[in-house]
Parts: sequence; C-alpha cells; structure tokens
Amino acid sequence: MSTGFFKDIAPVRYEGRESENPLAYRWYDPDRVVLGKRMEDHLRFAICYWHNFCWPGGDPFGGQTFERPWFGDDMDHARLKAEVAFEMFEILDVPFFCFHDRDIAPEGASLADSNRNVREIAGIFQKKMASSKTKLLWGTANLFSNRRYMAGAATNPDPDVFAYAAAQVKNCIDVTKELGGENYVLWGGREGYETLLNTDMARELDQLGRFLALVVEYKHKIGFDGTIMVEPKPQEPTKHQYDFDVANVYGFLKRYGLENEVKVNIEVGHAVLAGHSFEHEVALATALGIFGSVDMNRNDYQSGWDTDQFPMNVQEVALALYYILQSGGFTTGGVNFDAKLRRQSIDPSDLIHAHVGGIDTCARALLVAADLIERGDLSKALEGRYAKWGSNKAQAMLKGEMSLSDIAEMVEREGINPAPVSGRQEYLENILNWSL
Amino acid sequence: MSTGFFKDIAPVRYEGRESENPLAYRWYDPDRVVLGKRMEDHLRFAICYWHNFCWPGGDPFGGQTFERPWFGDDMDHARLKAEVAFEMFEILDVPFFCFHDRDIAPEGASLADSNRNVREIAGIFQKKMASSKTKLLWGTANLFSNRRYMAGAATNPDPDVFAYAAAQVKNCIDVTKELGGENYVLWGGREGYETLLNTDMARELDQLGRFLALVVEYKHKIGFDGTIMVEPKPQEPTKHQYDFDVANVYGFLKRYGLENEVKVNIEVGHAVLAGHSFEHEVALATALGIFGSVDMNRNDYQSGWDTDQFPMNVQEVALALYYILQSGGFTTGGVNFDAKLRRQSIDPSDLIHAHVGGIDTCARALLVAADLIERGDLSKALEGRYAKWGSNKAQAMLKGEMSLSDIAEMVEREGINPAPVSGRQEYLENILNWSL
Amino acid sequence: MSTGFFKDIAPVRYEGRESENPLAYRWYDPDRVVLGKRMEDHLRFAICYWHNFCWPGGDPFGGQTFERPWFGDDMDHARLKAEVAFEMFEILDVPFFCFHDRDIAPEGASLADSNRNVREIAGIFQKKMASSKTKLLWGTANLFSNRRYMAGAATNPDPDVFAYAAAQVKNCIDVTKELGGENYVLWGGREGYETLLNTDMARELDQLGRFLALVVEYKHKIGFDGTIMVEPKPQEPTKHQYDFDVANVYGFLKRYGLENEVKVNIEVGHAVLAGHSFEHEVALATALGIFGSVDMNRNDYQSGWDTDQFPMNVQEVALALYYILQSGGFTTGGVNFDAKLRRQSIDPSDLIHAHVGGIDTCARALLVAADLIERGDLSKALEGRYAKWGSNKAQAMLKGEMSLSDIAEMVEREGINPAPVSGRQEYLENILNWSL
Amino acid sequence: MSTGFFKDIAPVRYEGRESENPLAYRWYDPDRVVLGKRMEDHLRFAICYWHNFCWPGGDPFGGQTFERPWFGDDMDHARLKAEVAFEMFEILDVPFFCFHDRDIAPEGASLADSNRNVREIAGIFQKKMASSKTKLLWGTANLFSNRRYMAGAATNPDPDVFAYAAAQVKNCIDVTKELGGENYVLWGGREGYETLLNTDMARELDQLGRFLALVVEYKHKIGFDGTIMVEPKPQEPTKHQYDFDVANVYGFLKRYGLENEVKVNIEVGHAVLAGHSFEHEVALATALGIFGSVDMNRNDYQSGWDTDQFPMNVQEVALALYYILQSGGFTTGGVNFDAKLRRQSIDPSDLIHAHVGGIDTCARALLVAADLIERGDLSKALEGRYAKWGSNKAQAMLKGEMSLSDIAEMVEREGINPAPVSGRQEYLENILNWSL
Repeated sequence: MSTGFFKDIAPVRYEGRESENPLAYRWYDPDRVVLGKRMEDHLRFAICYWHNFCWPGGDPFGGQTFERPWFGDDMDHARLKAEVAFEMFEILDVPFFCFHDRDIAPEGASLADSNRNVREIAGIFQKKMASSKTKLLWGTANLFSNRRYMAGAATNPDPDVFAYAAAQVKNCIDVTKELGGENYVLWGGREGYETLLNTDMARELDQLGRFLALVVEYKHKIGFDGTIMVEPKPQEPTKHQYDFDVANVYGFLKRYGLENEVKVNIEVGHAVLAGHSFEHEVALATALGIFGSVDMNRNDYQSGWDTDQFPMNVQEVALALYYILQSGGFTTGGVNFDAKLRRQSIDPSDLIHAHVGGIDTCARALLVAADLIERGDLSKALEGRYAKWGSNKAQAMLKGEMSLSDIAEMVEREGINPAPVSGRQEYLENILNWSL
Repeated sequence: MSTGFFKDIAPVRYEGRESENPLAYRWYDPDRVVLGKRMEDHLRFAICYWHNFCWPGGDPFGGQTFERPWFGDDMDHARLKAEVAFEMFEILDVPFFCFHDRDIAPEGASLADSNRNVREIAGIFQKKMASSKTKLLWGTANLFSNRRYMAGAATNPDPDVFAYAAAQVKNCIDVTKELGGENYVLWGGREGYETLLNTDMARELDQLGRFLALVVEYKHKIGFDGTIMVEPKPQEPTKHQYDFDVANVYGFLKRYGLENEVKVNIEVGHAVLAGHSFEHEVALATALGIFGSVDMNRNDYQSGWDTDQFPMNVQEVALALYYILQSGGFTTGGVNFDAKLRRQSIDPSDLIHAHVGGIDTCARALLVAADLIERGDLSKALEGRYAKWGSNKAQAMLKGEMSLSDIAEMVEREGINPAPVSGRQEYLENILNWSL
Repeated sequence: MSTGFFKDIAPVRYEGRESENPLAYRWYDPDRVVLGKRMEDHLRFAICYWHNFCWPGGDPFGGQTFERPWFGDDMDHARLKAEVAFEMFEILDVPFFCFHDRDIAPEGASLADSNRNVREIAGIFQKKMASSKTKLLWGTANLFSNRRYMAGAATNPDPDVFAYAAAQVKNCIDVTKELGGENYVLWGGREGYETLLNTDMARELDQLGRFLALVVEYKHKIGFDGTIMVEPKPQEPTKHQYDFDVANVYGFLKRYGLENEVKVNIEVGHAVLAGHSFEHEVALATALGIFGSVDMNRNDYQSGWDTDQFPMNVQEVALALYYILQSGGFTTGGVNFDAKLRRQSIDPSDLIHAHVGGIDTCARALLVAADLIERGDLSKALEGRYAKWGSNKAQAMLKGEMSLSDIAEMVEREGINPAPVSGRQEYLENILNWSL
Repeated sequence: MSTGFFKDIAPVRYEGRESENPLAYRWYDPDRVVLGKRMEDHLRFAICYWHNFCWPGGDPFGGQTFERPWFGDDMDHARLKAEVAFEMFEILDVPFFCFHDRDIAPEGASLADSNRNVREIAGIFQKKMASSKTKLLWGTANLFSNRRYMAGAATNPDPDVFAYAAAQVKNCIDVTKELGGENYVLWGGREGYETLLNTDMARELDQLGRFLALVVEYKHKIGFDGTIMVEPKPQEPTKHQYDFDVANVYGFLKRYGLENEVKVNIEVGHAVLAGHSFEHEVALATALGIFGSVDMNRNDYQSGWDTDQFPMNVQEVALALYYILQSGGFTTGGVNFDAKLRRQSIDPSDLIHAHVGGIDTCARALLVAADLIERGDLSKALEGRYAKWGSNKAQAMLKGEMSLSDIAEMVEREGINPAPVSGRQEYLENILNWSL
C-alpha cells in the first residue's frame, strides 16, 4: 500500500527523445546495449538517502523549507521514511541506493540504542529488497553531524571519541554486509582541523591511519567482500580536511600501507572545490590504481562550497564517463547521485524531475563517451603523440639504464635539439563535440 | 668599481625601530641572538636572480616597463648583470642568492653553447663570492621558458625533450656543486597537462619519477651533499601540474621510493593557489618529514595567479615562522625572496625598498614567533588538548592492539559517551596577537 | 541579579599591553584621545544579537554545538536571552548593540503576534538601556530565514510576500525609532535569484526599488532621523544577490533616485566574497558619498562563503580604518562585530575572548591608522602624485573646456610624450608597516 | 595571390552534422533561417586581430611559441599581416572583424607617426573590404600595452597621459568611422589601481567620466553613428578596474549622465572573473537598457585569470543566446571571438580548427535557444510565476499608491500569510536540456 507521498506520479520509463512527458526518460534505456553492456550495468545508478529524505531545505541563513510527513526524530517516522524511499526507488527504476546510519534511524540514548535503531530499519530494508530490484551500493557511518564529532572522529584529541566512532563504524559495516552492500565508504568531513593553532597534524594523521587500518582488518575478519573507499573532500565543513583530494588520499594510503586495500569514491563537487576537474580526479585515481566509485553531482564553480546540484551538463559528464570507461568501467562502484534539490523546489514531484534530469544527462553522456571510444579518434591521437617513447633509446632512459651523464653525453653527441609539435587542443575538443 | 646602477644608495643596515631612514632595517639585526641563534642564521635570507635582474615588468596585457642597462641577450649584458647583482647583495647584506641557469646567461646556439655560457658566468660568481659574504642557497634549471618545453620537460611526449632537459639539469647541478650551493631545486611548471585530451597521466608520472631518480642518483655519484628539493605549485603556468602541493609531492615521492632523498621548497603563493595556508604546507611537510626550504612572498588572495609580492604582513609570516622554528628551523634551506616589484615600481631604489620591507617583515615575524615559543602558551595548550591519548587504553587502540570489535565492546561495556570540549580558537588567536 | 551565565567573568577593562590577564583590553582604552577624539567615540563598537545569542553552532554538515539556557522558541527564553545580552554588553563595556527582529523574539502565529513579541522584548531593552551605557546602533528585519521568504521578500514573485515583508519592516523601524536607534539597515540576502530560468530581473529590480523607497518615505513620515542603510553582499545565501557590492548598490540607488537617502553598511567578509578588499569598498563608498557603517569581521580568503570570524589582523584592519578616518570617520555608523565563534568554541568565556580579541585588534589598528595620518607620509605622497592635474591646461581638459580634437591637436603641437613615473607601491607598503 | 600561410586549407563551408571533414561546419549554415532571420544575421560573427595575428603564444613563464612570418615591428610585416588576416576571414566566411590600433600597425616614433601607420593599414583594409564580405564590427584603441599607460590612460595621475590617450582615441574613432565600423569599444584594462595607497579614486573616476564624455561628444560632432561601448572587466591586468562588471558600469554611466549614450560589450570570461555567469551579465544589461555586443569565449572556471579559450560548451552558450534573443537580438553588436589558441597549438591549421569549433558551438547553441523560444515552456513558466503581480492591489503597491503603513494595515486586516510555491529549478533545467 502506497504512502501516497508521490501522489499520482507514474513510474518513470524510457520513452525516447521525442516524448512530451516531462517525467519520462528520453535517454536512459536500461536495457540498451552500449559497448557490449546494458546501460543499467554501465551506470549502476544509486539514489542517496540523505539529500532526498533527510535534508530539510535549510541553508546557513534560513530554516526548513521542505515539509515531509516523515520528518521527526522517532522510529515511526523512520519507518515511514523507509516506505517512501523504496517508493521513489521504484518510480525511478534505479538498481541501487546508499545511506548513512544516521539517515535511516534516529540516534538513541546510547550508542547501543542507536545501533539497535539502525538494525531495525535495516531489517525493513531487507524485506523491501526481497521484492525490489534496488540493492545497496554502499553504506557509511555519519561521523560528522553530532556535536561529539565537532573536533573530528578518528582524529579527535579525545580517544573516547575515536573509540565511539570505531564502535559506530563497526555496526555500520555489519549492517552493510548483511544488506549485501557492494562497498563501504568513509567520508572524513571532520577529520582535519579548524585552526592549526590547536592541532598536531602528525599525531592526527597517525590516528587516522590506524582507524582506517582497523576498518580494513575488520572487513577481512568478517569476510565482507565489498570495497572499502575513502571519499576525498577539501575545506568543507572542516577548514582543512586530511582527505583533500585523490592525490592526497593516495599519499596517505601509501604512508599507512593501505594502497592495495582502499579505493576512492570521487565526488564531482569535491573535485571542483579542490581546484581540479572531475575527470582529472577520475583519471588520476585510475593511473594510481585506486579508482572506486563516484558521487555524481555538479558544483557551482563560483560558490566555493558544496552545492550538490544535479548534473545537467552533458558535455562535462561525457568527458568523465569517457575516462571511467577507459579505466574499464565500474566494478563494485557506481554512479550515486549525491545531489539535492534547490531549497525552493518543495514539491514531491521536484524530487522526481531532478533525478530524471540527472539520469538522462548521464545516460546521454554515456552515449557520447561510447561514441568517442568507438570512433577512436582521441585514443589514436593520444597514442601517436607518445609514439617516440617506444624506441629503444627512449625505453633505456625510462628503465634506468642510462644515467644523467649518459644522457647528457648522448644529447651532445647526437646534437639533440627537439622541435615543438602542436598539442592540438582545439581540434581534440572539437572531436568531443562531434560525438555530442 | 661600481656599475653606478644603484647610484648613491648606501648599504642598508640595522638602525632600529625609530629610524627615520627609509632604507634602513628597523627590525633585521643580523647579529641579534634569538632563541640562541643569530637572526641571520635563523632566517638565511636569499635574493633571487630572476625577478630582480631578468623580469622586464611585463604582464599579459603590457610589455616591459623596467629599463635596465643589462637587458639584452648576450654575454656582455650577462656580465654586467652579475656585477649589479652582487652590488645589490652587498647593499642588502644578505647571506645567500639563488638562480636558474637561464637567468644568469643567455641561451646559445646549442645546449653545449648554453652550458658554456652558464659556466662562464658561474666563474664570475666564484670570484665575486671569494670576497663577498653571499653564498649560493640553491641553483635550478629553467625547464619552462623555452618553447621546446611547452609540453613539459621530463613529462614531454617527445623523449628527446626528456633527454635535453636531463642534460641541462646535469650541467646546472655541476655548477651548483662547484659554487658550493647548499641545495638544488626542481620546479616543474610545465610538468603536467593543458588538457587531459592529449595526456597519458600514468605514463607521464612514470617519466617524472624516473627523471627525479636520475637527479638523485647523479647527486650521489658526484658527491653533491646539498639537498634535492621539489617545489610544489598548482595550476600555473600549466593547467594541472603534477607537483600540485606538499601532500601531492609526498605521494609522488612515496610512489617512486624517493621520500628519503627529496624534500620540498614551499612557496607562500603556491600554497595559497593550492587552497592552503602557507603554514599548513610547512606543518604538513614537517609532519611528513620532507620540509626543506621556503620561497617567501605573498600572493593576492583574490587574483588566482602567482602575484609574487613581497611579504608585508607580520602576523601571517610570524605564524609560518613559528611552525618552521617548531620543526627545528632551517638546515640547508633558507628564506628565498621569490618576490618581484609591481610593474610600476620602475626605479632602482624600488628594488631596495621592496627587499628592506620584506626582510624587516620576516625579522619582526621571527621575534613574534620566538616570543610565542618562549611564552609557551600555544604549545602548552596543544599538549593539554591531546593529553588523554597518553593513557594505556588509548595507546592500545593506536598501536593496533585492539580490533574494531574490541573497541566496540569496550564502548558498550564502559558506556563511553564523550563530551565535547571547547577548541578555544579565538583565545589561541589572541595569544598570537599578544606576541605581535 | 545576574543570570550566572558568564559565571565569575569580571568586567573587561583596559590594563595595557603588558597585562597577564587574558580577559583584559591591552589596546582598547575608551577614554584615550586619538586625533582629538575618544577611542570609544571613534570606533563606536557594537555587539550583534544574532551570532552571540541565536546561532546554535551548526554548519551545513552538523547540528547545534552550543548549549545555551535561553535556546527555545518562546517568550520566556527570549526574556532570559535579553538578560544575558545586557550582561555581556556590560562585561565588554561597549556603547552599542544591533539586532534583527527575529533575533530578539520568537515568531508568533500571525504577523501581528510576531510584532507584539518584538515590541515586548523591545520594552525590556528600553528598561535595560535606561541604566546601561549601551545604545542601539541599528535594527533590522529578518526577511530571509522563514520559508515564506525563500524566493525573496521585496523581490518575491508573490506580491503577498512583498506586503508581508513591508509590514514586518514597518514594525521594525517603529521599534528601532522608539529605542533611539541611530540607523536602520536592510540586508537583502534573498533579494536576487537562484536561477535566471525562473527570474525576471527587470521586474524584480523595480520591486526592490519601490520597497526601498517605501522605507525612505516612511522614515520621513514618522520623523525617524537615523540613517537608512543597505548592506551589500554577493552570492550567499542567494546565488545572485541584487546588492552585490558597493558599486552595484550605488547604481541601484541612482536608478531609483535614492542616492541621497540611503547609505551602505559594508561588511568585511562580503567585500571579500565580492572579489574586493574591504578598504576598497570603504574608499569607493566614500568617493560616491554613500559610506555609512561597517560590519567588522574577517573572512577566510579561501573558503568562498561567509565565515564571519573575528578580526585578528591588525595590518588589514588598520588600512580600512585609515580610509574611514580619511572620510571623516563615523557619523551615525559604527563598528558592529558581525562575527561569530567557531563552532567548537562552546564555552561562555569563548564569547568574551573573541570580542576582546576583536576589540583590541581594532583599537590597535586605530592607533596605527592615526599614526599614518599624523605622520602624513601617505597623504603627501598621494598629493604629489596628482600634482600635475592642478595646472590650468589639465583643468581645462577635466572641466570639458577642450574637445577630443582640441586635445589631439595639443598633443601633436606640443609633442606630448609622457614618461612613466614609479608608482612606489613597496615603499608605500613599508610606510604602513612603520606605523604598525 | 595567396600568402601561402594557410597552405592548402580550403574555405570552410557548411556540410552538415554527418560530415567527416574536420574543417567543415557541421551546424553553422549562414543562410539557414532561424526565427525568421538568417543564422549569419543573428550571430554576426567577428574575428579579432589581436589573438590571431599578434599574440606570440607567451605566458608569464614562457616566451613565444608561435612562429608567424608577419611577426616583426615594421610596416612590411604589418602589411603581410593584413593579407593573412583577410585570407583567414575568407576561409572562415565570417561577416566581421575587430581590431585595436596597435594590432594592425606598429607604434611610430611619435603619436603622429603611429597614427599615420594606423591610417596606412586602414587604407589597405578599405581596399580589401571592397571585395570581401567582411566588415568592421568595431575598432578600439590599445591604451594598455605601452609602458606610458602602466598607471592608467584616462585615470593616469599625469594629465599628459590623459591627453595622449585622448589623441590616440580620436585617431582610432576617425579610422573606425572611415571603415564603416558599426561600433567603437573602450576597454579600460589600466583604468583602476594596483594599490589604494597611491590612488585617489574620486579623482580618477571623474577623469574617466570626462574621458568617456569626450568620446561621446566627439562621436556626435563627426557624425559617427556607431554605438559607443565600454567593456567591463574585473581584476586583470589591474588589481582593481573601475569597469568591474555590468552593474558597476551602469552606476558609472548614471553618475556621469551617459547611460543613454553608452552600451556594454560583455565578455564571457570577464563575467566569470567578476563572479557572475555570462547570462547574468547579458540579462542585467538588457534589464538596464545597456546591452550592446559580446566577446565570446570561455574561461577556465578555476584559473582566476582571463584564459580566453574558444567556446565549446553548447549548453552554456545556448543559455546566453536565449537571453540575447529574448532581448531582441543584436542590433549594431555581434559575436566577436575574443579567444586565442592554447600556446601549444602552433600550427596554422589550429587557428582554423579553433574557429570552426567555436562557430559551430554558437550555431548549435542558437538552434537550442531558438527551440526554447519556439516551445515557449520557459517563458510561459516565467509569466505564470509573476502572475499575481497583475492584480490591482499589487500594482497599487508597486506604483507607490500605498505607503508602508497602508500595506502593514492591509496585511493585518486581510490576514495575509503567504504560502511558498516551488521554484521548480530542476524542471526548468530539464527543459533546457530537452532542446539540446
């Protein structure tokens, strides 16, 4: 029996580009085969619990704008929320969802109570999932909203907070495993500092390294075969966060010997806030062997904070998907919409419009990316550009068979005087648009 | 015999705060002992060749504004430039200078010619240095101005460019060693990409790793005992540079096994462009064990490019020096003014005003930093904040003696429910100002 | 009888630079005469109600961290809040405070109820003020927190919201007048747009022009002789706000014929977010004849949102105060601390530490600014730089007595070929530091 | 007879979306009628002289990368440059070009000489234009590159510079008129300040106001019927420029009574640097009645300086063109590509690839914008949103027939309590994508 929240909104299905129905997919056709794989299996869309069912529409200068029947801090509301969530998953026909422990169930009087609440709702999920196509992409523990975490969870100056966080994560991993989650994510929004004046960075990095190792050890102990992922983000909510960007996380993983155990969940908006493009972060993670999953959204380039808007620019998303496809595509990861309505979009139907737009943007972008790969112009141009590195001499330099003075001698002997070659950026950008 | 460029500008010396002489040091008193060391030995000031003697005052929308008798692309001008440079070192009474190979001598018809030019001017330096107090803090090769490097030096798609750059660096390290340089720096302004569309990042990172290894191997081979340093910088002149920031460089060094061989030269403006504070980069490098030296300047926070202004804000510099002192201070590194005049500051005396201002700002900041250390309020507050981590239980967690489930059990058993404690940021900021 | 909130914190008084008491003024000596006026009369410090007594310490990723006995949505709590507020004013010995209507009293069931609540608390203020030195610098209506204003107040697509806002403002002006407020401020945080796609800018600008005119007309009607001020701010909370910066507000005032009726209240952080320096906004407002008052704080240059930190950098504040003094200083305006604690600063004493630091920073900056004026080096240099404009020929050009062709002819006839002169920026920056 | 620079590159013509020819238009079909007008007449494309024929490929860290046979500082090279320019106009089949006086001819020994040089090349243009379709969109004087302008042209502290600039502009307007230019543009890159410390803003604003008035007066005197336009830009190359953004220019024009005489030439990248979207600047200029023309390009959102890249994002350009079409489209203005190659794009063909990409992006965007207008969904939604303002009561408020107290009374009497309505941002964004 329906909660009635979405009223008469019908399931959203593929109707093609010419549809006049605002709540139809024009591009997302789950069964369409692209590069040998179904669209649904390429994109592995997930809907997040927090923005859709928990965020009240507030901003730093204004309070709640959304009025949802499930807003309230008790288990009855949490149960209603779960009902509505699964109704939305079905309307949108997505294969995955994601959650934080605190999204799905209210905090109790003690951690034990809170854990029980989480488990109870997880039990409801389990029943729902039995009859739904929607599976769990990943779970994560909210180690940032409660005031106990204001100075960090793993990196807190108080070891009791470290312990509390560890205990909370244990429960959340257990639940994620039970629900068949394909990944477990850690986002360290409070792991960092507000002012260096009260912070011992070396000490806090070691705390964070240990915490992550605890998680990895526990994963193996309980036989959870999902991927552990860290989600990089700079500067918000903490002035400086230790997981600033992909390169930073890589260095951290190397420092604590975790680079083969942990991957990254890359968010578009976080990449932008760190001064990078999203495709840079994807390509770098691939190059470093730590690419895991993505949080898809778009960030206002000029706002300076996490705006978490729905992706709407096909060209931008296509470029990122091109690099994801080049890396072999998703394995346990997927495309989670970490995106929220603007706070004036107060109608239930706005939730659906937003996801339809985001999903269609990604689906269309996938077709562009696939076309780029099939045409092969970009990859051929790339190969050609580095072709000279295939020579024996070049390989000798690269493999350490020549010393600096060997090379210097060779340059003088052979009178090497390299001539510049066009980088052809504009031509390559045109290629991208031809597939659009 | 003087070149006459600085006309009647007298040597700048310490005259104290009440001096009415605009070209006197009000704070920088080289022999003043601070925390047991002479000011000069703490700060190890260096003057750079490029901004002072090579930059013509141009910007992207306008040409040369400075008229210097040594501007010109031949060896006679280069010799005159060397004369003036040492005149300025003496006027300012600084213990160090720094240069790129292309700053001191013009490019020749071949690399061999260029190398000869560099060596000839280095010979002049050697004579000058015999009778001057000014020594060489570091040398570096310019692998970015010439069009041959437009697509990278070590990371160029053309292995001939890699070879050419390697040969150029060899000569520059040789010269640096001969001049008794205390460090050798690599700045990879063109190591990165303009567009991902024509870039294979994995391949380029490997090229860069090899290049740096070549330098380290060569250093050991020739017995150069200076420090090899990389200078992080994001986004300019290359859209994305591989040495983005300290954390990024650390990950890179770990990836290629160079973290014990290479340190970082941190520039204020580069830190700012990467979205960090300068003191963050210093403290992080210290925590990671790779702190080397600093390029002191200030960046307009709102310009988005490298403005390379002289440092003028005592409070900001004091905080950075506080962290440098906390790390044990400089060993082979120092404070190099990588700062340039505004392009309207066309008089010879402007060069001196600018350095006097910068030097006094740092000297005054050193006194503030020393006072902070002597009072000890900040370090005591810091220690107190983490005191609970000294307990056996906390250490057991940190040392890996407890698993995630051990900790979870302990939290439940002991009913751990941590209470937040004030971070006292405003009070700590006040402490900083009390020393100002 | 004290509420006991501040426990045993004694009144903060001037003790001089060498004081060991963290809660003493080291620089702020209200009766000290600077440039012929008492410090207190120069700086006209105000404490704001909202950040100190209403903000719970939340951020976009975490909830309340402050626990205040007066938090709660009823009149009893509002009364307690008023008590504590005046206790804080006395402890800090400041001459002014500021408030929004919704800060001081809870929203009622109807606007009439809300207005009554505001008036009741205002009555308490009136009694307090009879025996306190603290007066009202300005009042303002909160037209941004409630969801009814999510799409704007004056610029709302729904004229009922315009009407509601007008009625709310009327009550707030009435109250401000009754309390002897010296100014009335309008901050249009929701006046602007989230997306151009749903916005008719021409129409909304006219609505906003009319709204401001209504306020000005009403001021004259009731004989309120305070200054009406608009507070510029870009991009937050609304994607684009119509009152973007000082220049923008000036154009708006000119468009609606209000440039002689309305002035600007300039906030440091808002200047920074608009891409300007604070001193720019002050100097521009002075040049345009609309300088009114300031909201003093500091913004993290790298965060991209309104961080509202307490001012701590003496050099920066000194430069702004220099321009304020040059403009003749404050008349009805003053220095309102629109600054809030960091969310980890949860102790009552943190409120006092923060204000002491901010007040001392401004007081010390005032001394620097006054010293700059007394020495006169900056103003003499400025005068000299423009001296040639005093000639008859120059004045003829400036006064429109020569046409473009007259001038062209003169250039050719006289062979005018101007030679550049140094702008001396570094020397001028040194002068600033000599007074520090 | 061809100069041979573009070798065998054939004229670029429309071949449709499926063309395999990289140097064909896939979308730009000049004669295609869109909303009742030819594409060519809608878009009025112009090619700029400076980026294509003058810029050497340098950046702040590297010198020239382009090798062009016409580089050189004499009239012979200038003549060759003119030949190549018109060859490129023909290849690309564009209806307009734009230039600065210093782009087309070298500076002479005196202003008179420089003016003669400009006139001579203009004579060549005149002959070329007799047999070419390409006309002059606008001319402008370069008042920023020469060191004489380093401290401003109109706003220089030296009135001789003001006079010199005035004389230079006179010549440039004369030439623009003779060539049938449809507009004359002023870009004040040096009108502003580097440091407030040496700047008297009130004085400089008056100088700038007079200068602009001189231009307007002269236009009328000589009967030039083109439009005078100011081009807003913030922060580069001058730390603060007086023509910061559209709103700022509007206030300036109002201050000096020029708002009916002068319009704005809006550049995409300048809008971005000012913290706005391009479409905001277009829509605001339209709302204020000063929209003139556009400099089309794209700016890296994360670089902080003017990157002047070719437009490649259809969605972004479509939105701007939508607002331009809504404003009635161009009259004397047009779409000037103020865009340059990346400095690695050193081949002659790169110039053509870049323009083909930019032109096709705009042409495709025009089709999207036209489709949006023809469907009418956006405009209908907009109208509906403000419909309540059509009521008599609402109009009475807007027309000043009700006072603040009248309105307040009405709110109380009628119990007005407005209910929020969804802003539907995501739905409206979807509409935009349906036309893509």
